[in-house]
Amino acid sequence: MISIDSSQTELLYLQIANNIEHQIKHEVLRIGDKIPSIRTICRDHGVSMSTALQAYFELEKKGLIESRPQSGYYVSYAHHKFLPIPKPSKPKSLCCNEDTEELIDTVMKDITNKKMTLFSLGVPAPELLPIAKLNKAMVQSMRNLPGSGSGYEDIQGNENLRRQIARLSLTWSGKLQKDDIITTAGCMNALAYCLMALTSAGDTIAVESPVFFGILQLAKSLNLKVLEIATDAKTGIEIEALKKAVSTKKIKLCLLVSNFQNPLGFSMPDENKKEVVKFLEMNNIPLIEDDIYGDVYFDTHRPKNCKSYDESGNVLLCSSVSKTVAPGYRVGWVAPGKYKEKIMRLKLYHSISAPTLSQDVIGNFLETGRYENHLRKLRQTLYTNSLQYFRCIREYFPSDTKVSRPQGGFMLWVELNRSIDTVEIFDKALLQNISISPGKMYTLQKQYNNCMRLSYGIPWNDKIEGSIKTLGKILKNSL
Amino acid sequence: MISIDSSQTELLYLQIANNIEHQIKHEVLRIGDKIPSIRTICRDHGVSMSTALQAYFELEKKGLIESRPQSGYYVSYAHHKFLPIPKPSKPKSLCCNEDTEELIDTVMKDITNKKMTLFSLGVPAPELLPIAKLNKAMVQSMRNLPGSGSGYEDIQGNENLRRQIARLSLTWSGKLQKDDIITTAGCMNALAYCLMALTSAGDTIAVESPVFFGILQLAKSLNLKVLEIATDAKTGIEIEALKKAVSTKKIKLCLLVSNFQNPLGFSMPDENKKEVVKFLEMNNIPLIEDDIYGDVYFDTHRPKNCKSYDESGNVLLCSSVSKTVAPGYRVGWVAPGKYKEKIMRLKLYHSISAPTLSQDVIGNFLETGRYENHLRKLRQTLYTNSLQYFRCIREYFPSDTKVSRPQGGFMLWVELNRSIDTVEIFDKALLQNISISPGKMYTLQKQYNNCMRLSYGIPWNDKIEGSIKTLGKILKNSL
Repeated sequence: MISIDSSQTELLYLQIANNIEHQIKHEVLRIGDKIPSIRTICRDHGVSMSTALQAYFELEKKGLIESRPQSGYYVSYAHHKFLPIPKPSKPKSLCCNEDTEELIDTVMKDITNKKMTLFSLGVPAPELLPIAKLNKAMVQSMRNLPGSGSGYEDIQGNENLRRQIARLSLTWSGKLQKDDIITTAGCMNALAYCLMALTSAGDTIAVESPVFFGILQLAKSLNLKVLEIATDAKTGIEIEALKKAVSTKKIKLCLLVSNFQNPLGFSMPDENKKEVVKFLEMNNIPLIEDDIYGDVYFDTHRPKNCKSYDESGNVLLCSSVSKTVAPGYRVGWVAPGKYKEKIMRLKLYHSISAPTLSQDVIGNFLETGRYENHLRKLRQTLYTNSLQYFRCIREYFPSDTKVSRPQGGFMLWVELNRSIDTVEIFDKALLQNISISPGKMYTLQKQYNNCMRLSYGIPWNDKIEGSIKTLGKILKNSL
Repeated sequence: MISIDSSQTELLYLQIANNIEHQIKHEVLRIGDKIPSIRTICRDHGVSMSTALQAYFELEKKGLIESRPQSGYYVSYAHHKFLPIPKPSKPKSLCCNEDTEELIDTVMKDITNKKMTLFSLGVPAPELLPIAKLNKAMVQSMRNLPGSGSGYEDIQGNENLRRQIARLSLTWSGKLQKDDIITTAGCMNALAYCLMALTSAGDTIAVESPVFFGILQLAKSLNLKVLEIATDAKTGIEIEALKKAVSTKKIKLCLLVSNFQNPLGFSMPDENKKEVVKFLEMNNIPLIEDDIYGDVYFDTHRPKNCKSYDESGNVLLCSSVSKTVAPGYRVGWVAPGKYKEKIMRLKLYHSISAPTLSQDVIGNFLETGRYENHLRKLRQTLYTNSLQYFRCIREYFPSDTKVSRPQGGFMLWVELNRSIDTVEIFDKALLQNISISPGKMYTLQKQYNNCMRLSYGIPWNDKIEGSIKTLGKILKNSL
């Protein structure tokens, strides 16, 4: 019934768990169905009791099965029980400029407050980071680097780090070489240099809607106009809407988050990525691509990015390890295609070089395979978290709630009843030591007032479930 | 004759050396005079032979005395033997835009080349940095910081670091508090945020001439016009020239390097600092002050800076530890006065936060007094170096050479015969593995072609003397 391929290197218990999950997802096993007993699994697959238990523990963690006392295991959760996904956004075809800075300040103020349940967190919680291994690597880098890393790094960036990033490009079918890459102090820093290199004050740039508030504010700080384009919570930017915008307005460049976008969580289908790249190239519009979440996929493969389809050097790919390994290390990079010279100069004149030691640490972390090992665990944890969140939101939130269904990253976009104002919810939740991120932050137009972003990048426990429950109560009381 | 105060904590040998140096500088002892024998010093001051020898070694290192075989010690060098100082600069009252980027690229390319004698180096050589102590502090910070510093730092910056910087402000009669300070990824990063916060494309800013090429290029990258103001190699910006510029042009802001300016090495007299601050405040023109070299003084006190005289918050003071402790750590700061909110937002949107670990390390370094200990040694070394350079330049360079006489920092500005083109000298010197920094880099006008900047931030040895000699030969051959 369930075939186990023992020649594969994948752990046995995971194979068993994955097979059962597959059957649940494809409704071979339906909600409420009894699944084989532990004993049956052991006998049928010739595995030990502990392997079978571990497999079922894995499924339980994901909320897919549940044990009923003195009865056995049952399918508790399946795909058709997800709440609906929000409809594509419909921003106005105007460059607006709503003032959300104070709101952002208020939300960011508590971002290091240990007492809070931080659903507003923009990075995985510290407990999910490979801290001990980073510390070891740091000591090693201090030992190996000339001057223990006290001197300026090469302007383009640590050579080994650039080589490792180039090697990593194979995972998205890229062909980067170390000389194609410039390191930066994080991904926002990379985006900032790209925007500065390619725009002048007053230019208009096109972005998804909703989009990470940092991108909107960065553009504002450079006196750019921002055109928000209709975006689908499953497939990303609506290409027809983008084409229409380009035909009616002078768009200087396009900035997209292609995979597991913050806050919607979509990953653009390959054909969309390809089409956008070709269309923008044809219209001579550079594409700045932020692929910072691409390595945190829940599927079996890393998704491609737009850069995968870039033949002319028109795509400037930006990323960092801030969402996976160490936000505080400030290690990011850009593969700027044909705009390399400009970006190098901007980096030199705005910061001379990026931090020396942390670049070397991350270079080693990638080289030794520790990055991939760490990611395997992180992905598993985040995926399980996401399922728990889906379950709790369905259970505790008002029944007309819509929620995105990301296949990677760690952000959920929640759309609530139109009568709900999530800025008010933010204030009320704060009194209960819960911090959320109101939808209004993710646009410069008057929209998304009934939306919010929830991070599931915090380790799952009863307190989190309690906080979602509390949040649900606040929402229901506000209706 | 020479009085020694043994109650002072200052080391005996230094007291003896300083007293003799004082007599040489005031021409009590003149060039060629025989100075007391070691034996006489021991007897007169009741010190050991080794103390006396150490004192004389100190004076010898500075090139102030020399031993002649079987004869004793003689005064070899004194203040009136310095070469003349270059005359005040006379830049045009136009915003020019000479293209020096390629030249800068060429000079910067070899900046990590170990084979070269790097007179072009913009930081102290690694041998002068407190690397072992930094490494210890780094291990300590990894141990003490939550998440070993893998998480984002507070947006305003590490609290202890800000407190220590505030404490340090006492040394220049400042009254900063920790909340007045925002940390940045180095001083250029601080200058970049200040310029972005206060200007729009097309604005005109006033700077000294010559001035560090990074400042000129940073301004260009933000599409600013740069007005270079006449500057005196002894006292800095000419206040009358600045006043005239303000009366005839719309100046958006003024950016000055008040102490041991790069490349001229002057420190503005206190009354000039005060007058500039008052004048700019009265005219509602913000002053961005770069005081990155202020702690590297050769006199007995740290010089004040313009911020010392700022009563209205109109001065944005920028600095870092890149010129004193660890360029690669990317730890800088700005005390932005009344512009704090704008700078905070720019920092958040362009980089989220500065590197967590290195901020903590520098905070501890300042707190434990290691910074001051390190600086004491660094100052002594750099001062001695500067004297050696003066001696060698006088000995080996053409006789009509002029050279600045900095009382701090580690840069000399050398003005040569008008017929010499230092870009050609750069090319010729490179063939001899010597790297200099041509004067042309320090302006956007057609000037300083016969000037160059030499760094004395590299440990003195015979190779350095040989390189200055070689450079002198190249110069003489070019006449």
